[in-house]
Amino acid sequence: MDKRQEDVMRIVVVGSVGLDSIETPSGRADEVLGGSAAYFAVAASYFTTVNVVAVIGEDFPSDAQATLTAPNINLDGLEVGAGRTFRWTGRYHENLNIRDTLDLQMNVVANFAPKLPEQYRHTPFVFLGNIDPGLQSQVLDQTDGARLIGCDTISHWIEHERAALEAVLKRVDVLIINDEEAGMLSGESNVVKSARRILDMGPKTLLVKRGEYGVLLFSPQSVFAVPAYPLEDVVDPTGAGDSFAGGFLGYLAESNDTSEAGLRKAIVYGSVVASFTVEDFSLRRLHALSRDSIEQRYRQFVSLTEF
Amino acid sequence: MDKRQEDVMRIVVVGSVGLDSIETPSGRADEVLGGSAAYFAVAASYFTTVNVVAVIGEDFPSDAQATLTAPNINLDGLEVGAGRTFRWTGRYHENLNIRDTLDLQMNVVANFAPKLPEQYRHTPFVFLGNIDPGLQSQVLDQTDGARLIGCDTISHWIEHERAALEAVLKRVDVLIINDEEAGMLSGESNVVKSARRILDMGPKTLLVKRGEYGVLLFSPQSVFAVPAYPLEDVVDPTGAGDSFAGGFLGYLAESNDTSEAGLRKAIVYGSVVASFTVEDFSLRRLHALSRDSIEQRYRQFVSLTEF
Repeated sequence: MDKRQEDVMRIVVVGSVGLDSIETPSGRADEVLGGSAAYFAVAASYFTTVNVVAVIGEDFPSDAQATLTAPNINLDGLEVGAGRTFRWTGRYHENLNIRDTLDLQMNVVANFAPKLPEQYRHTPFVFLGNIDPGLQSQVLDQTDGARLIGCDTISHWIEHERAALEAVLKRVDVLIINDEEAGMLSGESNVVKSARRILDMGPKTLLVKRGEYGVLLFSPQSVFAVPAYPLEDVVDPTGAGDSFAGGFLGYLAESNDTSEAGLRKAIVYGSVVASFTVEDFSLRRLHALSRDSIEQRYRQFVSLTEF
Repeated sequence: MDKRQEDVMRIVVVGSVGLDSIETPSGRADEVLGGSAAYFAVAASYFTTVNVVAVIGEDFPSDAQATLTAPNINLDGLEVGAGRTFRWTGRYHENLNIRDTLDLQMNVVANFAPKLPEQYRHTPFVFLGNIDPGLQSQVLDQTDGARLIGCDTISHWIEHERAALEAVLKRVDVLIINDEEAGMLSGESNVVKSARRILDMGPKTLLVKRGEYGVLLFSPQSVFAVPAYPLEDVVDPTGAGDSFAGGFLGYLAESNDTSEAGLRKAIVYGSVVASFTVEDFSLRRLHALSRDSIEQRYRQFVSLTEF
């Protein structure tokens, strides 16, 4: 990648890159590419250019590396740590909304201290993928003048790293979490009340992901609700949320339109990209997309929802 | 009501009219007006005229009767049976999607055999509210030339009156059930596969109600998805589904537009009416509406969902 291309990279993402072993009612996949930064980067790469900040181990397989290698993805910030790659093993129930973590090995992520390459520091769009909120803050400390900062988190950090998470939330423009996480973070079961409390914690906008039921946007000025694309064959829900975030931020970074209308279109693009991801294991379907196929499903989404 | 008005009644509904005792996290209400036909008729009456077929007991209170009495509602088919009115006692959990039935007294409904007054028989729109599918069929046997037949049912009939229910479904245009019922009826957990199986059973169109997540429409030609209006204070979810059906059929009967576009608008009107119903116990909020307040929330619904 030449210097000129690096200058125009539009998004920097920090998160995990790892190997997942997944069992779902449709089958299983072992030691396949996963992690929040992997799904996010590939999803966003259909719209714009992405700088990746993450750590892999010395055992990271070449085919996984190849999946992440693309003209729109800069891997200068993909550090190779001493030791093994992060691994997650999970099993989904017949009801795909429920999954059990069977094994979790932090490996190289345990000692990860993100260091942003110089050319990453002025990237206009920042996405803090699911990772220790302390590391998310370290990334923000190394960026300057971001136009929009997005952030994801999970229940683990809400429970165990509340103070560090609250510190990050004060610096975030768009928080993207699921309904269960929103309930835990706010202590409110009603999603409207929950959203108001979370907006008081710092984010200007909250997106609540509801899986197969769609997404809600809350800001002090407005509410937007969009259903999910109804799918006949969901093979593996892993990475749906990260793909959603990648499509969402990717479209925002491409359009440079962060108005309410821009956010709404970006949510639909995020939903479209996520709907592809879950149609196969790992990044298989996501990696094989084209912008045309995304646009085609976007139009189907319009006809799905218009009245 | 003079003969001329009777001639133009647009919908006939069969269902229950009873007394509910309800406990929710917001409070309780005892022996208040309830039942599928009651919610449906009042909801539909904001759009069109409704003929009611149901049975009440000799103890039916005058204030409940007054709530059902309106220029747009014909009660000639509201039979007074010998004995007590149908009663249901239920308690909602903190999660309002879950409720326990604490007591159920069929009373006069146990011996109900619907008899349609002569002037009901050519009503163009028919709604078979939740009641024994055998009785739903008896109502259809007494109607002629209906333009559109809608039908609701619950898991109890799917489990215990499967054959009678399947016989009704063959005669129905639009089946309106919730996602759990759709899963039971089809034996499929995926809602898209479930819909295809149910459409094979007879209905031309299936509406799947998903509570706070909205509604899906399936027909052989298309899918439509609409979120629910996000509410801050849900006081009592009872009757939401019947109000939805009332708003839906009411708008269809008023517009006389049963095209795909007409069905979609009708679903939004149904969702709007249901969003009011759950803001108070029983029919208190539903009964106090105006067409203006419905239109205002319809416009809010448009801005909630447009992108």
